[in-house]
Amino acid sequence: MRVVDVTDPADPLLDDLRDLNKSDKRPDLPGGRGLVIAEGTYVVGRMLLSRFTPHVMLGTDMRLEQLRREATAEGWDADERAGDAVYLRASKDLISEVIGFKSSRDILAAANRPEPLSVESVVDGARTLVVLEGVNDPENLGAIFRNCAALGVDGVLFGAAAGDPMYRRVVRVSMGHVLRLPFAHLSGTPTTWQRSLDDLHEQGFRTIALTPSADTSLARAVDAEKVAFVLGAEGPGLTEHAMRACSVRAAIPMTDGTDSLNVATAAAVAFYERAREG
Amino acid sequence: MRVVDVTDPADPLLDDLRDLNKSDKRPDLPGGRGLVIAEGTYVVGRMLLSRFTPHVMLGTDMRLEQLRREATAEGWDADERAGDAVYLRASKDLISEVIGFKSSRDILAAANRPEPLSVESVVDGARTLVVLEGVNDPENLGAIFRNCAALGVDGVLFGAAAGDPMYRRVVRVSMGHVLRLPFAHLSGTPTTWQRSLDDLHEQGFRTIALTPSADTSLARAVDAEKVAFVLGAEGPGLTEHAMRACSVRAAIPMTDGTDSLNVATAAAVAFYERAREG
Repeated sequence: MRVVDVTDPADPLLDDLRDLNKSDKRPDLPGGRGLVIAEGTYVVGRMLLSRFTPHVMLGTDMRLEQLRREATAEGWDADERAGDAVYLRASKDLISEVIGFKSSRDILAAANRPEPLSVESVVDGARTLVVLEGVNDPENLGAIFRNCAALGVDGVLFGAAAGDPMYRRVVRVSMGHVLRLPFAHLSGTPTTWQRSLDDLHEQGFRTIALTPSADTSLARAVDAEKVAFVLGAEGPGLTEHAMRACSVRAAIPMTDGTDSLNVATAAAVAFYERAREG
Repeated sequence: MRVVDVTDPADPLLDDLRDLNKSDKRPDLPGGRGLVIAEGTYVVGRMLLSRFTPHVMLGTDMRLEQLRREATAEGWDADERAGDAVYLRASKDLISEVIGFKSSRDILAAANRPEPLSVESVVDGARTLVVLEGVNDPENLGAIFRNCAALGVDGVLFGAAAGDPMYRRVVRVSMGHVLRLPFAHLSGTPTTWQRSLDDLHEQGFRTIALTPSADTSLARAVDAEKVAFVLGAEGPGLTEHAMRACSVRAAIPMTDGTDSLNVATAAAVAFYERAREG
């Protein structure tokens, strides 16, 4: 890591971290530069441990020391992992001015997007996967990745119409785990991608549609060598196409009707049931 | 329900639903009028079914019809439940102007706070309770109530330093279930309220501290006639005082260290394990 002190908010070194809230300039939005942004020492730490190598970081001196301490406590070296990345050391005020809002985190990092992973590389060796159809709320996407990381899910596959997991809020809500957990996009249109589920079946996966219109209990459904949970967006849920393509339909027993658990919470319960059995 | 058409945004009938985002005027904040606000047909419906009787509603004609239809589909009568409440029927533009922001929900209701429930009334007959210490993030509070309602928890008890569950965002995130699920506040200071847990023990409850520093598994912990889950705020977790006062400490098995599940998500997993056994 190279530490460079910055005092001029117009310094071009800061350009990749400018105006993070302005939708016409947002580096993480479609049409933007495709940059992936991490905020806070914990999430910046996850980025340093991931395949998303940051080329630039921005933060206070205090946060730099905190990042180094937390890494050491976890058994790795922040300077070594950061390699050639530059750490722009600045005041809180300069950071707020550059990013365009007051952040209590005072440390950020930006990485270019690496090549996407192949579906094969995500599936190979996995015991538990998640397949997402149409989930595009960034809070839900982030929470699903966080829950995957906590509860032992090996990877995430995106069907059609799901949101971009590299969006800044997804990274933040996921606690940076979206940077570390392997994910890939299945090919096909909203009405054809479901055929990819057959590829999973051929590789020994039982695909479990999580839906209130279930034909088996969650506890029974997860009892298989390889399992892929298939989740739809909160509200509409899975398409009929997707449900028909799955091996089984399972429900979480609920007292209060169908829409009572948030999709990421329902996912956590399913992952827990799987880890419980495993 | 009395339906009154309103066309003048200055009409004093609208006063209880004015400027809902302005913190100096917010009716649901401390120092405000203590009003409880519901938004959207589903949540307004939960309010009508609760002990929080709204005295005024504000919405479009379309939402009024939708509220009536949804109630009928659920087997109750919106007009009957609304009793003497007045429905101020207005245009979308007038609603936005009065409440101070554009709402996609187009229907709101305001209720005065009823007398708080006694701890006894919440505990009597309950099989599963939740006790919250220091949980004050409104999203987390709301999600905990939503998860309680979905997964069969009978009531919520508040230890010291928890947030106000009647805050507008809590009501919204809980999907209105905070209005229906019984809750009460335990007496005592941040270092004495934990003695109330002994009252629960005397009534046959096993109190389960959810904490990574566990002495038993969640599955084993929930196997009791009456159970109370004790949860601390995300981040700091439970105080040592609270943990010492509990019967057992249980953890959700996680792959990725301690802070990996959001507190409301961890609660949902615990509730699921309880419902699974029950």
